[in-house]
Amino acid sequence: MDYFSRQKNTNIRLTLPVVCFVWQIAMIILFGVFIRYDEESDAHWVETKAHDNITSDIENDFYFRYPSFQDVHVMIFVGFGFLMTFLKRYSFGAVGFNFLIASFGLQWALLMQGWFHSLDPQTGKIFIGIESLINADFCVAGCLIAYGAVLGKVSPVQLLVMTLFGVTLFAVEEYIILNLLHARDAGGSMVIHTFGGYYGLSISRVLYRPNLHQSKRMQGSVYHSDTFAMIGTLFLWMFWPSFNSAITDHGDGQHRAVINTYLCLASTVLTTVAISSLSQKTGKLDMVHIQNSTLAGGVALGTAAEFMISPYGALIVGFFCGIISTMGYIFISPFLEKTLKIQDTCGIHNLHAMPGVIGGIVGAITAAAASERPEDFKDRTVLTQGGYQAAGMCVSIVFGVVGGAIVGSILKLPIWGDPADENCFDDEVYWEVREPESIPPILEYNNHMIHKQQDLSESNFSVEHCES
Amino acid sequence: MDYFSRQKNTNIRLTLPVVCFVWQIAMIILFGVFIRYDEESDAHWVETKAHDNITSDIENDFYFRYPSFQDVHVMIFVGFGFLMTFLKRYSFGAVGFNFLIASFGLQWALLMQGWFHSLDPQTGKIFIGIESLINADFCVAGCLIAYGAVLGKVSPVQLLVMTLFGVTLFAVEEYIILNLLHARDAGGSMVIHTFGGYYGLSISRVLYRPNLHQSKRMQGSVYHSDTFAMIGTLFLWMFWPSFNSAITDHGDGQHRAVINTYLCLASTVLTTVAISSLSQKTGKLDMVHIQNSTLAGGVALGTAAEFMISPYGALIVGFFCGIISTMGYIFISPFLEKTLKIQDTCGIHNLHAMPGVIGGIVGAITAAAASERPEDFKDRTVLTQGGYQAAGMCVSIVFGVVGGAIVGSILKLPIWGDPADENCFDDEVYWEVREPESIPPILEYNNHMIHKQQDLSESNFSVEHCES
Amino acid sequence: MDYFSRQKNTNIRLTLPVVCFVWQIAMIILFGVFIRYDEESDAHWVETKAHDNITSDIENDFYFRYPSFQDVHVMIFVGFGFLMTFLKRYSFGAVGFNFLIASFGLQWALLMQGWFHSLDPQTGKIFIGIESLINADFCVAGCLIAYGAVLGKVSPVQLLVMTLFGVTLFAVEEYIILNLLHARDAGGSMVIHTFGGYYGLSISRVLYRPNLHQSKRMQGSVYHSDTFAMIGTLFLWMFWPSFNSAITDHGDGQHRAVINTYLCLASTVLTTVAISSLSQKTGKLDMVHIQNSTLAGGVALGTAAEFMISPYGALIVGFFCGIISTMGYIFISPFLEKTLKIQDTCGIHNLHAMPGVIGGIVGAITAAAASERPEDFKDRTVLTQGGYQAAGMCVSIVFGVVGGAIVGSILKLPIWGDPADENCFDDEVYWEVREPESIPPILEYNNHMIHKQQDLSESNFSVEHCES
Repeated sequence: MDYFSRQKNTNIRLTLPVVCFVWQIAMIILFGVFIRYDEESDAHWVETKAHDNITSDIENDFYFRYPSFQDVHVMIFVGFGFLMTFLKRYSFGAVGFNFLIASFGLQWALLMQGWFHSLDPQTGKIFIGIESLINADFCVAGCLIAYGAVLGKVSPVQLLVMTLFGVTLFAVEEYIILNLLHARDAGGSMVIHTFGGYYGLSISRVLYRPNLHQSKRMQGSVYHSDTFAMIGTLFLWMFWPSFNSAITDHGDGQHRAVINTYLCLASTVLTTVAISSLSQKTGKLDMVHIQNSTLAGGVALGTAAEFMISPYGALIVGFFCGIISTMGYIFISPFLEKTLKIQDTCGIHNLHAMPGVIGGIVGAITAAAASERPEDFKDRTVLTQGGYQAAGMCVSIVFGVVGGAIVGSILKLPIWGDPADENCFDDEVYWEVREPESIPPILEYNNHMIHKQQDLSESNFSVEHCES
Repeated sequence: MDYFSRQKNTNIRLTLPVVCFVWQIAMIILFGVFIRYDEESDAHWVETKAHDNITSDIENDFYFRYPSFQDVHVMIFVGFGFLMTFLKRYSFGAVGFNFLIASFGLQWALLMQGWFHSLDPQTGKIFIGIESLINADFCVAGCLIAYGAVLGKVSPVQLLVMTLFGVTLFAVEEYIILNLLHARDAGGSMVIHTFGGYYGLSISRVLYRPNLHQSKRMQGSVYHSDTFAMIGTLFLWMFWPSFNSAITDHGDGQHRAVINTYLCLASTVLTTVAISSLSQKTGKLDMVHIQNSTLAGGVALGTAAEFMISPYGALIVGFFCGIISTMGYIFISPFLEKTLKIQDTCGIHNLHAMPGVIGGIVGAITAAAASERPEDFKDRTVLTQGGYQAAGMCVSIVFGVVGGAIVGSILKLPIWGDPADENCFDDEVYWEVREPESIPPILEYNNHMIHKQQDLSESNFSVEHCES
Repeated sequence: MDYFSRQKNTNIRLTLPVVCFVWQIAMIILFGVFIRYDEESDAHWVETKAHDNITSDIENDFYFRYPSFQDVHVMIFVGFGFLMTFLKRYSFGAVGFNFLIASFGLQWALLMQGWFHSLDPQTGKIFIGIESLINADFCVAGCLIAYGAVLGKVSPVQLLVMTLFGVTLFAVEEYIILNLLHARDAGGSMVIHTFGGYYGLSISRVLYRPNLHQSKRMQGSVYHSDTFAMIGTLFLWMFWPSFNSAITDHGDGQHRAVINTYLCLASTVLTTVAISSLSQKTGKLDMVHIQNSTLAGGVALGTAAEFMISPYGALIVGFFCGIISTMGYIFISPFLEKTLKIQDTCGIHNLHAMPGVIGGIVGAITAAAASERPEDFKDRTVLTQGGYQAAGMCVSIVFGVVGGAIVGSILKLPIWGDPADENCFDDEVYWEVREPESIPPILEYNNHMIHKQQDLSESNFSVEHCES
């Protein structure tokens, strides 16, 4: 594949290993200095049991968070990974690079979130337990969303850099929104989806490729790649109730978050199908919409899922998200590309950025309209809380846009081994691919003849079929 | 693809969006009127805590049902969805329409089941919690089973109508069987599988297509589509213990239901393989049998899973289910098509209807033979209970057959946009497919020419590619 | 397909059904004699409640083991099954035979492990509960690992025989290691992975095929088969924390095992990518490494996961496992094949055998270095315990190598219907495949060229081909 290097040097044999080794060694050192087991995962917890109120091994918080954690974990690796396999020839990059950056990101997230949220002043240590792992996965989700905007156009080294800064920015904005503004955002409409969405879009803008049409042949999907992508869609869709409820308070709040998300997502599916069908002549459905817009409801309920939004309220949110997200794919994405020069491979603007903003607004309204004040709203009125929620939303947008612009300009440096415009969306650039591009139809034709020779009626049929 | 409309109008651009919008809006209104959070998911539960006996947040039933719920949820969307992707060119319809009707069905099920099972007389409200979500998924399963019989032969609009009536009938027969006859059926051998199976077969009979052979080229599988289908098979198989135990009483009953289903399914696999191998010259295995008959044991233990059937009893049930179900695919399905004119795409008769009936009988026998009377058998003798179980079985069959006949005749109306006989089992009718159809080859060849001609830059590029 | 029988008789129409039926009937009889529900899954548990200390239905151990069990169950059937689908034309055999032998193996494991570990002296019965099911799945894992070494080269009958003896040997070595030596091995680095690895390698050595190159055209992957394999990889990777923690003591031990495995696997991914990139010119990644070596960390932490190895300790283990396992694929596997005549289809030596040994050593060191003595180390010093851990490691290796040699020679008998050297790695031998087998690489190359040039030559090519 030497001709790749003719236009651009995509050789990452030096940079990728160096980055992986250096960063992983850094993780080991930092973990050695800062990270310890928390009292519920430490063998000495028995003595410390006094100052948390678990009276037996089976009351360990592990048992009440672990099922949700595993669902979230599946969303991060299978959900996000396979959702991006829709491109005809970028499945390895989608699943494989998603795997790589998530694995680095969760380690870095444990440190960053630890420093900002749970650094013990006395010992100077970060004590981690199952809830820390969930939060690390959440933090990673923000970076994987951003990956969706640049899918197929960047090198794995660029992705690792994107993740390093993405996790860092995430931890800061999360600290501001949750700890300083005391906004609520259990499912991360603002903290995860709005930030991640605008972070990715902003980077994609800076990395704008005027000649991307040269790799047009590699864009779009084939039949099996669309089916693979549905694996990602469904695991995200099914486990989203766990995502929105994983770190809420135990009891009714967590229970309610699941019910709301379950209902909201169901309603999203129907309106997505409706708009998708309306958008095509003869009402055919478009897999792009089904794969992505059906998830918008989960995003938009990230903030309000645990609130008393009521079941029909959840359905209403889902109803409008399906419509808006699908319309985004039909009208807004082309506009963004033409006018604002934002090339958004997976349409994360329609799946994460917009629904995330909607989610923040829904959260603000629900909080402001709450019948009585949850104890942890401090001494605020519900109205003030609504205002703080709105403020949180702005913080996440600013961090996404500004942070993305800065990181994007770093990624513009010619040292990262990114592909030439005509080699985008092609696994052959970074993966050993063992077969030629797509098996030409003529080949299938031959085998089919050999295979079908006995069945003459069919070949006759097919001939007249194409004459018509 | 205009030649589709020559014979039949498959344009659903008006009907599908209208049905989706109107029904979803109806759901929102009805949820607003009837559906509320139950005491364990409501923020006010603290006051109401008195009249259920949970003393702390972590005793919320959520923690004891949620893992099972998520397993069932995966079965509904990934399990049923991917099991039906085996057809060479109907994967979008299999996964996508399964997704659509399940999302509508679960909302409608919460209302129907609520009205029949848990309408609060004082407030006139339905209070929902995690157990309601499981029951809604169960109800949907009945309709997805029915979909298997008509896969590839109906339009999404017809599927939505099928689901609307299917859920309604389900709620009624379930009410009769569980609440009036007080039969036990935790895993739904009768309520879900027998009803769903006969409902689908009855509809398929009414919609009989004499010229279905015209789309013969689209029937059957290709290599990758069979592999996709195994994803569905395995997730159904692995999580079936959760399915049969999800709503049983807490404690030993739920524990036992898991053990029994786990063992029963294991034994089914061996006998399925044995019969499949016997049925082919040189003993080759048939993927159709492995994909479907291996699951028959789970269906057949739906009623008896929680009973004291004993581990070897579970193995025996599985043993015979594997044999009967596989023989069904070899002998009964062709018979049904030829003689009774029932075209059963997925062979649900062998996977759900027959094993469901077996399950009902097993349940009746086990109940009648029980060594001591479970407290909730009222003042009945175990023998009487056996009789009531048998009665329940008959109810589910009658509801399936009669209900299916009525719904089928409604679906026969020429307004639903169903495909012509030669366009069945083809995603191109209802989906934007971005690559040429793979069969017949001659057609693909032509499309490919058209497809390739416009992109000259590619051939230039590729020429030098070959030279290098 | 008569030409298969020219060299070798692969007709299993008699043997496979007979083995399945006879063995399944034997299981039913043995279960009838020996297997009963344990006190937490038996309807009579209420009386027996006294002598275990559960005070309510929701304290049933079911609720604290079941989520982990389901994760392990997914690893066994989807994880192992799909990991082996990477071959271009052996996906049915990979998923299907994995399904078959696991279903038999878990039944036989319940008996074997019951006799050795939990046979009640008074009643002479084996009482099973959720933990027994987890252990049965673990036992099966050992045999599925061994399958990886002979994938594509044996008949399903041989696999069943391999599993029968494998489970038997497993139960014995497990008894020696855990009950006699009192070594700790919660995640089975020694008991499962080391034994399974060497058992498979030893069998593969005995079944050495000098002319395996004759089926070279079927070795290696195609694009979609590599994507399918990633499903297996990811489900194994994500659920490995459940695997290593499923049967540990409740509370902090289980909590810690999850944290350690989660971290260890993350660090493995980065070093795997680094070495894979270093090994290829232009730094391209190899799917074989990503699919397999990323899992080595989970294997290596099987013994020490529950120990106080500390978070950075887990990262260090993962760091080196990724390096060693990937290098194994690059250097050791070719060496094993050339020099030792071990043909290891999936490279289990690099994924299970080597990391398993590392895990045993890590476990021994951690135990010997423990700051204080866990109560269940009996009256031993931590140093002695370290020694016993090392002894356990040796036992598992000896059982694997010697046991595999014996079983291998049994499988050499010409009665099992194994394929000829030129028909290995081909589903057509044991499965009804509905489309022609994929084309040998040279033909693919030609068509690739033709595809890349103009359509003209394509049509010519096709014409002459049709005439042939």
